[in-house]
Amino acid sequence: MTAALRVALAGLGTVGGGVIRVLQQNRELITRRAGRPIEIVAVSARDRSKDRGVDISGFEWVDDTSALAACDADVVVELVGGADGPALALARATLAAGKGFVTANKAMLAHHGLELANAAEGAKVPLKFEAAVAGGIPVIKGLREGAAANAIDRVYGILNGTCNFILSKMEAEGRDFADVLAEAQALGYAESDPSFDIDGVDAAHKLSILSSVAFGMKPAFGDVAVSGIRDVIAADIAEAAALGYRVRLVGVAEAGASGLFQRVHAHLVPTHHPLAHVTGSTNAVVVDGNYVGRLLFQGAGAGDGPTASAVVADLIDIARGEFGPAYAMPVASLAEASPAPTGERRGRAYLRFTLADRVGVLAEIAAAMRDAGVSIESLIQRAAPEDGTALVVIVTHEAPESHVEAALERLRGSQSLAGEPFWMHILD
Amino acid sequence: MTAALRVALAGLGTVGGGVIRVLQQNRELITRRAGRPIEIVAVSARDRSKDRGVDISGFEWVDDTSALAACDADVVVELVGGADGPALALARATLAAGKGFVTANKAMLAHHGLELANAAEGAKVPLKFEAAVAGGIPVIKGLREGAAANAIDRVYGILNGTCNFILSKMEAEGRDFADVLAEAQALGYAESDPSFDIDGVDAAHKLSILSSVAFGMKPAFGDVAVSGIRDVIAADIAEAAALGYRVRLVGVAEAGASGLFQRVHAHLVPTHHPLAHVTGSTNAVVVDGNYVGRLLFQGAGAGDGPTASAVVADLIDIARGEFGPAYAMPVASLAEASPAPTGERRGRAYLRFTLADRVGVLAEIAAAMRDAGVSIESLIQRAAPEDGTALVVIVTHEAPESHVEAALERLRGSQSLAGEPFWMHILD
Repeated sequence: MTAALRVALAGLGTVGGGVIRVLQQNRELITRRAGRPIEIVAVSARDRSKDRGVDISGFEWVDDTSALAACDADVVVELVGGADGPALALARATLAAGKGFVTANKAMLAHHGLELANAAEGAKVPLKFEAAVAGGIPVIKGLREGAAANAIDRVYGILNGTCNFILSKMEAEGRDFADVLAEAQALGYAESDPSFDIDGVDAAHKLSILSSVAFGMKPAFGDVAVSGIRDVIAADIAEAAALGYRVRLVGVAEAGASGLFQRVHAHLVPTHHPLAHVTGSTNAVVVDGNYVGRLLFQGAGAGDGPTASAVVADLIDIARGEFGPAYAMPVASLAEASPAPTGERRGRAYLRFTLADRVGVLAEIAAAMRDAGVSIESLIQRAAPEDGTALVVIVTHEAPESHVEAALERLRGSQSLAGEPFWMHILD
Repeated sequence: MTAALRVALAGLGTVGGGVIRVLQQNRELITRRAGRPIEIVAVSARDRSKDRGVDISGFEWVDDTSALAACDADVVVELVGGADGPALALARATLAAGKGFVTANKAMLAHHGLELANAAEGAKVPLKFEAAVAGGIPVIKGLREGAAANAIDRVYGILNGTCNFILSKMEAEGRDFADVLAEAQALGYAESDPSFDIDGVDAAHKLSILSSVAFGMKPAFGDVAVSGIRDVIAADIAEAAALGYRVRLVGVAEAGASGLFQRVHAHLVPTHHPLAHVTGSTNAVVVDGNYVGRLLFQGAGAGDGPTASAVVADLIDIARGEFGPAYAMPVASLAEASPAPTGERRGRAYLRFTLADRVGVLAEIAAAMRDAGVSIESLIQRAAPEDGTALVVIVTHEAPESHVEAALERLRGSQSLAGEPFWMHILD
């Protein structure tokens, strides 16, 4: 038996507790698989006395989180969170001390991943972050290793369980966004400040990590075009369903000759697409490779058990000695990402207009679409008898995105519209 | 730059050609990811002069396949096929020569996997077989590494693309098995001797490999209960649909206190289950872990591109030095598999009877079910006006499998039945 892998754990929230539990409950199995025991030796968290349902009395307690880097461990696991602050200080101190670092912190990786990968490479220690993207789903490994033979054409998926929970519930119950969000908050499925989730920022953090691993490019979180699901109304979901689509918050990344394209937006997903069947807080990631074709990875995107599973999978890789560069290749081999222009991208779009109670309104919309060079595939108009307004939704034929935006620009401020138009991409 | 990983390739069929193409086309990317080039140095196949659409003139040609083990390579890739014969001879010679071995050969692994894993361990060289199960889907890696923190409760999935293609086509077009099989053979989607596929043997080979990796048990292919899809008729698929199910050939493995349970049979899958949406030749594997919950891996289960993608992923792992025991743990740590008794297993079942044109037939069936202690959840009876027979299909409540079999036993040989009853498990 080789010596145990000694682990220091920062952060004892639900995921930290999960890591302790999985290492205890599956100890014998993990030891057989890893070839040696994995043992927590030290922990740090804000409050030592809080009852977490796990016994931490056998671990060294360290008050100052970043001091964990100095304790007698081989690897530090960071579950503190936050792009900067104590998490980043701990990451830097750990790698500088020549110890491996495992994290679930997507915000920190989105902002400082390259610096940390560089430090890990210099120190010849592992930097691993399976838990940072899509919870328990081994998609970092799927890209870094499973699909490594492929040039990746596109990686995309449902990366935020809170948004998918809300959209699924809106769909199943015909309810509006604000209403479902309030319920999700009451149930603890959404944060009291939900903006990181519902405005797409969390999904964008994860997408930028996937992009780097998939395309061998330096992380470029700042180049992700991001919007969330606040503007999706119950009628969008109902009309999309009538047209054969479901609404999902999808993060999409593609690398092509014109650069790296990354976006997180609400999309219409055709009902025959696997992502249309992903409901509740489940996550799913699709990888399109030039030899493997379409791979789908699906599972729980959050929660203490799944996230702890991913953290411990990283520890097992480290215990086995099966690890290498964080982004699938040395930092020196990563290409610079330059953002691809979006306007010339071709795609189909869904547009929703609320019409004022006037004559000739539909003609005005149709003319704007025609003048911008966007042709209409389907159109539904429904009256809202109570206030005289009407809802018009349109699915376009394929057109450059700039044309769709031009059509909307022509209509902006029109007396014919009650409220701002809203549009979504259609996933092809 | 580290020295290239030198590869000898046995078998130049469609997959072998795919391996050559992916290594050529994605050469620069693979080199960046692997940290060094991966180069084919020697090849062997039956016919040197056959046109394969790839240039093999730069590789050493070896007439005798097992002589590849002696050539100047670090790893041998075996794509010859067959449980024994030249493939097995090559595997033994390669490992005996202290070289790594990569194979897509599920039949050989099902029968000789343990011997080969032992030899690889003794020689401290890699034995890898991602391509042997579910084509391009990295599910061996998903189990061995991605889900390694979990006690696996169950692993199951759609493991044979030919069967899924046939069942999907029967479903979409309302056609009968023999008819669709003949078309699949004409299109090259099914072999001229299709029995390995349609009788479930190929799926059983793959299931036994998944079992070993998932549960840390020695391969026990002989203990897999196997039947295929020959007895599924169009009416089964139609009635299953009416009841909210689709018919799929599913391989299921579970390890519990009573032993290892492995079966490959046609199952009814509820339409809300992800496997119900897997159509055509796509494969999908579900892993239920005690922390991660349900993970789904889906993608192309066969074809030159996807299979080559998996083979080259194994080579990249080897080039990176990121490999370890073949079955996720040393052979000495693998438990002996003892087959679990199936009779006491509880589940729901679908039964189909063709009734003779007599009075009291339904009463006889209902009495047999009652007497065996199996209660009925749904029942559909449809007359076939042309010949006076009628079809009865039943979905049972949960009951021990032995009770369902006892009910059928009571009815065997009854004058009331025109033809043998047929039954399928319902996936829960």
